[in-house]
Amino acid sequence: MPELRKDPIIGRWVIISTERRQRPTSFSPVIRSKEAARCPFCPGNEDATPPEVMAYRQSGSEPNRPGWRLRVISNKYPALKVEGPLDRQPQGIYDKMNGIGAHEVIIETPVHGKDIVDMTDFEVRDILWSYRERMTDLERDIRFKYILVFKNYGEAAGASLEHAHSQLIATPIIPKRVMEELEGARRYYGFKERCIYCDIVRQEITDQVRIIKDHDAFVAFTPFASRLPFETCIIPKSHQSSFLEMSDSEYLNLASCLKDTLLRIKLALNDPSFNYVLHTRPISRDAQDQYHWHIEIIPKLTKRAGFEWGSGFYINPTAPEEAAAFLRDLDTSSYRPDEASQAVK
Amino acid sequence: MPELRKDPIIGRWVIISTERRQRPTSFSPVIRSKEAARCPFCPGNEDATPPEVMAYRQSGSEPNRPGWRLRVISNKYPALKVEGPLDRQPQGIYDKMNGIGAHEVIIETPVHGKDIVDMTDFEVRDILWSYRERMTDLERDIRFKYILVFKNYGEAAGASLEHAHSQLIATPIIPKRVMEELEGARRYYGFKERCIYCDIVRQEITDQVRIIKDHDAFVAFTPFASRLPFETCIIPKSHQSSFLEMSDSEYLNLASCLKDTLLRIKLALNDPSFNYVLHTRPISRDAQDQYHWHIEIIPKLTKRAGFEWGSGFYINPTAPEEAAAFLRDLDTSSYRPDEASQAVK
Repeated sequence: MPELRKDPIIGRWVIISTERRQRPTSFSPVIRSKEAARCPFCPGNEDATPPEVMAYRQSGSEPNRPGWRLRVISNKYPALKVEGPLDRQPQGIYDKMNGIGAHEVIIETPVHGKDIVDMTDFEVRDILWSYRERMTDLERDIRFKYILVFKNYGEAAGASLEHAHSQLIATPIIPKRVMEELEGARRYYGFKERCIYCDIVRQEITDQVRIIKDHDAFVAFTPFASRLPFETCIIPKSHQSSFLEMSDSEYLNLASCLKDTLLRIKLALNDPSFNYVLHTRPISRDAQDQYHWHIEIIPKLTKRAGFEWGSGFYINPTAPEEAAAFLRDLDTSSYRPDEASQAVK
Repeated sequence: MPELRKDPIIGRWVIISTERRQRPTSFSPVIRSKEAARCPFCPGNEDATPPEVMAYRQSGSEPNRPGWRLRVISNKYPALKVEGPLDRQPQGIYDKMNGIGAHEVIIETPVHGKDIVDMTDFEVRDILWSYRERMTDLERDIRFKYILVFKNYGEAAGASLEHAHSQLIATPIIPKRVMEELEGARRYYGFKERCIYCDIVRQEITDQVRIIKDHDAFVAFTPFASRLPFETCIIPKSHQSSFLEMSDSEYLNLASCLKDTLLRIKLALNDPSFNYVLHTRPISRDAQDQYHWHIEIIPKLTKRAGFEWGSGFYINPTAPEEAAAFLRDLDTSSYRPDEASQAVK
């Protein structure tokens, strides 16, 4: 059973999950499956994964068989386990609890080598809908306080498989970074009685210099205090505390915005590894007026060195205004997905 | 001039330092100088670096010439600049100030390829003394609130030069991570009227399972809620808020402890890249009773993926007890430094 342990000084929870890697000497990079035939996420290999939690599939096709266009499974090597009580308890002066949670993988497409940038807006919307569907389901489990959706793309971003996928982890605590945003948003609201994210959107639309592109209900921009080069934020322009509050047309609009932004990053930076994370309000509906959901995209271009580790602040060698201009001015119209990525093998 | 920008939501300061890397497309790894002849940190190449701030050298030898055994210079590509006022100001709803600070490099030895693990305890003590000397000097600058000493070893840890060196950055703000420790330590003190770090030392000495080695005045251990595999902490066993409060014999004791710990990490993990950072109390003498200085050592064995980015909590695949046992049980007596590292070329 994984264990959640609390840092006694700063209160950060850490997952100690020793089942994922057994020996102290086994810190070699995970081998990526380049051959679609052996990829556990490819159609025909459904028995290489845990059974599916849900799927979007051709009517009449059977679960855990080909015929799906998107598939959600439990992670084969979960960071947290879904069965059991939390069992919060002390250990001397320390605090711990069982590593309870859900850890799922969203296989975004049956086509090996096809990524979000190669998909139609409708295919990307399916991914967003699958996030919504899994979040809505997991919110019913009273042990969970937060559901974090994220994507690791490329080896430098921590992806261990090439086939396009996102992940979701439901946790029994609100993660530290989200809590910091919540507290900051509450402090601002206490002072101004306005959502800080709404004020940021207004400021960015006024300034224009950090806007990558305006997409009707959403805007993609590089934050004023970007930690890393080409860090990008996608945010709804009107106040919305939860990812689950969108209308159907907004999901399609967001799909188009996400795809366009990732394509710009791919073309500008030679297909870099990246992470994206979805920050939405906690399950408790806490901070509905104060919090504002958003997606953070972080290309992996630099290494984190001792100063960043030791201080918690970042040295960013690219001004956000320069990054935004570079991404904004790109011509994306000539991009053609590989032919190989357009058919199920 | 670099700029310090404040994240409007969580209050984290970021250094935007565009002079360090010019073009958006230039994110290639820095080339390491393997040839000692071209290394700017080797004796004879003193003119390839900014002039020295201080040095320990043979009596009679001239500044910026060979004859030194340790040398401190300004960083050629500083993240922060030392001249100018802070000039705190708003920019719309945002906050910024000039990127004022000091950024120095401690060249730890004239011998290219020699590392702390290859040095005598007295040579390592020289490094610690140089930290003390530079910190004591920089504390007099009223613009600075904190001085962070750190070391990047190996490419994965962000080192751009192979020749053994540490760095020091003086900042006009207390870094976020130190502030979190200060606040946590204050909260605990408010509740218990005891230093939390002292309580942790007591707990660790009672439990023994996370102790790597006990070194008289210091102890090396793996923290209960280690973020990363083989994360290690070195801490004085008696209460001491500042690195500058040590007695002379304690500096020598610490040198021996640091060298032993780094040697264990080197032998156990096949000479991994690592960072270490020195956390001491702020210049203001704030929190003398509550804070307790320590060194954090972080081997670079895993990648930070989207979940860690998005949540701020960590998945650690190695239990700290397992890491400590592995490091504790190593036989370090047979280690012999390379002959090459024992003479100035």
